[in-house]
Amino acid sequence: MADVVTMDKIVSLSRRRGFVFPSSEIYGGLASAYDYGHYGVLLKENVKARWFEAMVRERDDIVALDSSIILHPKVWEASGHVEGFHDPLVDCRTCKLRFRADQLEHSRCGRKPSKHPGETDECDLTEPRHFNLMFKTRIGPVEETGMDAYLRPETAQGIFINFKNVAQIARRKPPFGIAQIGKAFRNEVTTGHFIFRTLEFEQMEMEYFVPPAEAEEWFRYWVEERFRWYVRLGLRESHLRVRPHGPDELSHYSRQTSDIEYLYPIGWSELEGIAHRGDYDLTAHSRTSGTKLEWVDGEERYTPHVVEPAAGVNRSMLAFMVDAYDEEEVAGRLRVVLRLHPALAPVKVAVLPLIPRNAEIATKARALYEELRRSVVAEYDDSGQIGRRYRRQDEIGTPWALTIDEQTLVDDTVTIRDRDSLAQERIPISAARAVVEDRLAADWTSPKAD
Amino acid sequence: MADVVTMDKIVSLSRRRGFVFPSSEIYGGLASAYDYGHYGVLLKENVKARWFEAMVRERDDIVALDSSIILHPKVWEASGHVEGFHDPLVDCRTCKLRFRADQLEHSRCGRKPSKHPGETDECDLTEPRHFNLMFKTRIGPVEETGMDAYLRPETAQGIFINFKNVAQIARRKPPFGIAQIGKAFRNEVTTGHFIFRTLEFEQMEMEYFVPPAEAEEWFRYWVEERFRWYVRLGLRESHLRVRPHGPDELSHYSRQTSDIEYLYPIGWSELEGIAHRGDYDLTAHSRTSGTKLEWVDGEERYTPHVVEPAAGVNRSMLAFMVDAYDEEEVAGRLRVVLRLHPALAPVKVAVLPLIPRNAEIATKARALYEELRRSVVAEYDDSGQIGRRYRRQDEIGTPWALTIDEQTLVDDTVTIRDRDSLAQERIPISAARAVVEDRLAADWTSPKAD
Repeated sequence: MADVVTMDKIVSLSRRRGFVFPSSEIYGGLASAYDYGHYGVLLKENVKARWFEAMVRERDDIVALDSSIILHPKVWEASGHVEGFHDPLVDCRTCKLRFRADQLEHSRCGRKPSKHPGETDECDLTEPRHFNLMFKTRIGPVEETGMDAYLRPETAQGIFINFKNVAQIARRKPPFGIAQIGKAFRNEVTTGHFIFRTLEFEQMEMEYFVPPAEAEEWFRYWVEERFRWYVRLGLRESHLRVRPHGPDELSHYSRQTSDIEYLYPIGWSELEGIAHRGDYDLTAHSRTSGTKLEWVDGEERYTPHVVEPAAGVNRSMLAFMVDAYDEEEVAGRLRVVLRLHPALAPVKVAVLPLIPRNAEIATKARALYEELRRSVVAEYDDSGQIGRRYRRQDEIGTPWALTIDEQTLVDDTVTIRDRDSLAQERIPISAARAVVEDRLAADWTSPKAD
Repeated sequence: MADVVTMDKIVSLSRRRGFVFPSSEIYGGLASAYDYGHYGVLLKENVKARWFEAMVRERDDIVALDSSIILHPKVWEASGHVEGFHDPLVDCRTCKLRFRADQLEHSRCGRKPSKHPGETDECDLTEPRHFNLMFKTRIGPVEETGMDAYLRPETAQGIFINFKNVAQIARRKPPFGIAQIGKAFRNEVTTGHFIFRTLEFEQMEMEYFVPPAEAEEWFRYWVEERFRWYVRLGLRESHLRVRPHGPDELSHYSRQTSDIEYLYPIGWSELEGIAHRGDYDLTAHSRTSGTKLEWVDGEERYTPHVVEPAAGVNRSMLAFMVDAYDEEEVAGRLRVVLRLHPALAPVKVAVLPLIPRNAEIATKARALYEELRRSVVAEYDDSGQIGRRYRRQDEIGTPWALTIDEQTLVDDTVTIRDRDSLAQERIPISAARAVVEDRLAADWTSPKAD
């Protein structure tokens, strides 16, 4: 795939098939904002569902939470975000553009458009200034009585401030975790890498509270566990790597961080960060709020340490699409196919009447479709040549297609076509639902060959 | 239930069992903001999943969309929200409180706390002023180059601006619909009715695009369809009513609106609004953007009319909890039970080892739990007296509990306890999973008796 896939091809497929559209397009668009179409919604929801299964449903030690996007402003003072969550920006006095001071080597001067980076050295740059990345708003209907508030730049803090509530009610003793999926917002100068970095995005974060002495062990555990999750869902191991942060790039709250990186068309980039946050957050919120956030059980009393695997929904979805994207020549024609893991595929099976105007074929196809959709996401497609319909299903990543043809009227069999191998077999129509369900349930944990 | 349930009891249960917490509590709380705990997340996700099934998965004429919360600001100019989406507020010069001018009869003066409404007539009120309900923010890292933006007050506009993209790609001809679930934000003076009205909330909106001549018929169809959805999921018909808006209360975009109202402890209040929006939105966005949003198919060309069923996730969840809440005396003790529809219940089945310290019992219970959780959300509970564990499951609405006792060791049977009837039967442990799955799948469409 590394040979054929480019970001442009993913963007183009996403648009063509309705996965992702540029947001507010009829108004000229809004930079770094995207809307998700039908298949994009289904794929994104599948990514979240697989994460929730692995992190909450299949475990006994993690519970779910959904905190507000707008929290009390003191939360962001305590967390250090008001003070320290900013980008250093420089302005060019000549070309009037603004750049991130720490990324000048990737930027280019506005006066001399060029494909070569590093041309900002021709600019006349101001000294760097710091700009907070949090979107600010105001609660309360009128200016004079309102209160400043922020859109959360991460979901994590909503978890820390609920530590005591959850620990009491969930009757959990460390090690235990609190998991949350939700939107976060960052007012960033972005470089436009499609849905890799956007103004608003969805996070899947889990804060794992552990006895301090066990923190390093759990840190290693979660790096491995999360790496395996991506592999289990089909990312090639050769496109994944774990990169430990050097001491100079650690965030202020972190004792140790490793990024799981994916080889995007834009190069190796962060897919997920696993951070050993120590007692930074619970201590900070205890200090600022006056509420002791600690673990107490009889004589035992301590502030748990936190290990946090923090993944991005949108960039995971992008990685799954990039890794699944393939082109091949079949019978002299270019075939584009998304080889998505069936557990992620937006549509699991398509039902295609070969000759839609044949009423008998259409009736049988429709009945099969109605049966299948009771258990899996199915699609009925009767428009256009069969080859075009296959190509459409290939491009949205549908693992199986069932075709009803004239032979079906004779012997009640249908063909099942495999998206990846292109193999077609005839199976009894009465077995079709079971065959699809079995293939879907089959253990696909083995990584794809490179 | 009308006899026993009060908002206080729902708030208290929500907190006690970890459905809903006041947001930012350790910082003194944030008015009209709530965080959802484990069971709250599961219940809320079930509400959304049932809506998505009914509106998208079980139909061929509706596709999904997930648009941005922050859209281009022109969207809100075109929609009329910048100009017209406000509350009229008055200030009291004496008690310094602020009231909604259109709700003075429900307000009370700050100087004379009283349970009787209408006491604002003792206040010295200013003339009403209009305050826009949209949260405002700014995109771009610095003030001087940024652009004003708003957090969406409804998800609907994100659908209208994507009409053309979706219609082309989904190859749909009216009537067809676009459905979206997502957060919306309103900077309101609220009266604090728990999660009925909050600063941020989740909407489930569907815009149904139809040929103009069919709009009234579809309007009636959707009022009925949506009413039935609530009944199917267990709300008593006697607690539901359809209330058509009078001409004086219609929104600026609406030709006809009916609210589905629920009898909350605070009285009849809107659960969902179904609006016949005519061509208001597509025409407004066509005019402002210059992009013609219309249906074209050969000679046929028109601006579709729109019928919109717009439901609230949080207030639906509240209605389901209120309707399900029950208290009864059982063997001289008060039992609190949430009689939630199994399709909504956060946990479907609990596995309870009667004597947890009996290793054989614990092993069998654990094995059964591991088997059950592969297909349904199950919970293993071995802490405390069995009666306390039952009460806990009753309060979170778990329809069935399986208890493993000494008899299980003799004959491999378990008891299955029904949350509502309290009936207990012994069934073979090998049949337990099938029994739970069958009961869950059973058609529960018949409305509950009052």
